Amino acid sequence: MRHAVPLTPSDLVVDVEAKPKMVDTPVRIRPHVVIVGAGFGGLAAAKALGDQDVDVTVIDKQNHHLFQPLLYQVATAGLSPADIAAPIRSILRKYSNIRVLLDCVRGVNTENQTVTVNESAPIHYDWLILATGAHHSYLGNDEWAHWAPGLKTLDDATEVRGNVLIALERAEIETDKAKRDALLTFIVIGGGPTGVEMAGAIAELAHRSVSGDFRSITPNCSRIILVDSGKRLLKSFPESLSATALKALNQLGIEVRLGIRIAEVHDRGVMIGTELVCANTIVWAAGVMASPAAKWLGRTGDRSGRMPVDDDLRVAGLSNVMVIGDTATCLDEGGAPFPGVAPVAKQQGNYAAKAIMRRIEGQDVKPFRYRNYGNMATIGRQRAIVDFGRVQVSGLMAWLLWSVIHVYFLVGFRSRLTVGMTWLWNYVTFERNARLITGLVDAQPAVKIKR
Amino acid sequence: MRHAVPLTPSDLVVDVEAKPKMVDTPVRIRPHVVIVGAGFGGLAAAKALGDQDVDVTVIDKQNHHLFQPLLYQVATAGLSPADIAAPIRSILRKYSNIRVLLDCVRGVNTENQTVTVNESAPIHYDWLILATGAHHSYLGNDEWAHWAPGLKTLDDATEVRGNVLIALERAEIETDKAKRDALLTFIVIGGGPTGVEMAGAIAELAHRSVSGDFRSITPNCSRIILVDSGKRLLKSFPESLSATALKALNQLGIEVRLGIRIAEVHDRGVMIGTELVCANTIVWAAGVMASPAAKWLGRTGDRSGRMPVDDDLRVAGLSNVMVIGDTATCLDEGGAPFPGVAPVAKQQGNYAAKAIMRRIEGQDVKPFRYRNYGNMATIGRQRAIVDFGRVQVSGLMAWLLWSVIHVYFLVGFRSRLTVGMTWLWNYVTFERNARLITGLVDAQPAVKIKR
Repeated sequence: MRHAVPLTPSDLVVDVEAKPKMVDTPVRIRPHVVIVGAGFGGLAAAKALGDQDVDVTVIDKQNHHLFQPLLYQVATAGLSPADIAAPIRSILRKYSNIRVLLDCVRGVNTENQTVTVNESAPIHYDWLILATGAHHSYLGNDEWAHWAPGLKTLDDATEVRGNVLIALERAEIETDKAKRDALLTFIVIGGGPTGVEMAGAIAELAHRSVSGDFRSITPNCSRIILVDSGKRLLKSFPESLSATALKALNQLGIEVRLGIRIAEVHDRGVMIGTELVCANTIVWAAGVMASPAAKWLGRTGDRSGRMPVDDDLRVAGLSNVMVIGDTATCLDEGGAPFPGVAPVAKQQGNYAAKAIMRRIEGQDVKPFRYRNYGNMATIGRQRAIVDFGRVQVSGLMAWLLWSVIHVYFLVGFRSRLTVGMTWLWNYVTFERNARLITGLVDAQPAVKIKR
Repeated sequence: MRHAVPLTPSDLVVDVEAKPKMVDTPVRIRPHVVIVGAGFGGLAAAKALGDQDVDVTVIDKQNHHLFQPLLYQVATAGLSPADIAAPIRSILRKYSNIRVLLDCVRGVNTENQTVTVNESAPIHYDWLILATGAHHSYLGNDEWAHWAPGLKTLDDATEVRGNVLIALERAEIETDKAKRDALLTFIVIGGGPTGVEMAGAIAELAHRSVSGDFRSITPNCSRIILVDSGKRLLKSFPESLSATALKALNQLGIEVRLGIRIAEVHDRGVMIGTELVCANTIVWAAGVMASPAAKWLGRTGDRSGRMPVDDDLRVAGLSNVMVIGDTATCLDEGGAPFPGVAPVAKQQGNYAAKAIMRRIEGQDVKPFRYRNYGNMATIGRQRAIVDFGRVQVSGLMAWLLWSVIHVYFLVGFRSRLTVGMTWLWNYVTFERNARLITGLVDAQPAVKIKR
């Protein structure tokens, strides 16, 4: 497991007076751990390897770690992108054994133990952790993506934000009733936590902000529809909490359509079953597809593209490659896969780092165990549901709990403080301060306008 | 001055229970004031007309008012876009006689008294205030814009921010010394307040943030150059303050090149006089060109495209059209034009509104007088200059004054509080929390990378 490594952080420590230069033939004896992806899983692994006796390279195609659970708040103008994202470099700055690369991985050569990237030479690894997450999947209908963007990156969120805000602006000046109705119809596809949170937040934005700010359109002009093909919302929660969520959504004026499939998404709107609902703004929160880690390893992923791994998160036959988080399928003792949530990714990242350190030291490694502390979702102002397994909480108490926990977990002190204050402010005033439409050039919006 | 107006706010007050509908033949007797542009000038005019006995329509091609003096902080990752921008609708919400339109003006028909817009029917006015500001001018070299973006909109600022951050990221992995040097060279063209502030902020970002976050590049790798063709910086300030600013910039490690012209800007860098300086990141802060208001009115603007106006801000021969702010040239009693700064625009907007109300009431209108409360610029942490005319202040005291005044003038309570806190935080920690590169797709950056 110990190799000569061509490019690791300590090779590059330079004389402050001199310009940096490459060392010709570095001979390294510290093992080199490469982590691909700085989401919840990758970041947890990196932190656990910080200041350990290994060199670590973290590769991500974005320069920031994103707190995805709050992305819907950026999409609905409640928070700014910088409130829920922090530069990966800043987060890992204090660990001198960690190097961060902004680059895009193209493949893995398990024989040579190298990772192929876009911008520099292949990177040799002794240990590899793949934590590349998942993106949204249109279940074979990729052309729907144009009309129904999903919600995975900051750019997705600002696109959706632009779509929602532009729709309200156009509705204000539209004189044709059918067109105005379509502009004021918002369809969220997918009844999981993201879909439920998104629908709730759109309802608050559209119903509240139009009441004072616009002159032609009024709150009850807006129609928000949440569609799911399943029989109930939030399948990962107990039935009683699904029912609570449904009631809360109805109270917010959201039409919830369950047990019905999306037949088509196009320029005019969505075919919900056999009914065409004309809508300008559609948000996709339905399927996810794992990133191509399985393909990189020359293996076949499961139906959602996830790489099956052993109970120690290693890929069968590859003793030094671990796959974690949404990229992996790992079965619990009952044979069920772990859910695709942040706590699983974080615990797996932490486990992967510790497992590598133990193996380097020649120690045994026990199988991964997921400790479930609870599961939560929010549905707009004052409404949330929390499932602690034996205990279920809903309503104001659950919302407060949800707020405190999410603010706490946000990376970095400043983000926590800012988000906390922004939430308090939004709560007191119903204000949404990040209502910015950017990318407008001569009022020819870069965001899509449907006719 | 009283006409039947086709579309004004009170026509559109709708029954909350019913869907909005158009009134067939509205007959209006309240005068209709149309304001084009919701910058400092237009917004001041709108506020002064709020709740007066007129109907007001504010048209802007952006949905937000932008606090331009702090745009350089967004470009250098110190503040988030939403910290310095607020939706125009929110700002004017409380005035029921004001309607806000997101649209782009295409022209003015002074005979019919209508404004032509992109998205709806021509808008009739009784009084027209043109407050459309200025954009940057490349002095006849528009092709330079591709390599040296200016700083006028939020999109400009996030583009520059992306360029600066990407350059640092690429420098971290670049092994060719000449290429790395170009990546770490930042050229700001123009020694006015924007250029000086921008150079100072880039220096703090590049020198401070690279020190801990990167592994290959070190603080003194970065080279920041500020170029101006004039003999001194900040021409609008007294010579002693220009000297203070120069000294402060030198202390920050910035190379200031005065009295030298830019011959060329291209993919490799900038020809400063006869010397080619290779640079990846170039910011244009040199010339401005007024928006085409003069052209709309069928008149000829001055050398910078500004519309000459009388001492009551009206256009000669058009008794009901006023042009204010950066769009106008108005001479003071000594025959010198007023400077293109926010206080002039604000005072002119306020004056224009009051002049219209007085004329409607048949009263006399005195000429516009600019009251100059002082002029200020900042040069990074703890350094600023303030010119009160008789008294000049520089150093920490000036910086504190600058901070308090800018935070105070930011629109909206929440922005003030957030900006104040963010600044305090940045000051204490040297942190820049909005260091987000967005628009990256598979690490093929949307921002320009030069070779």
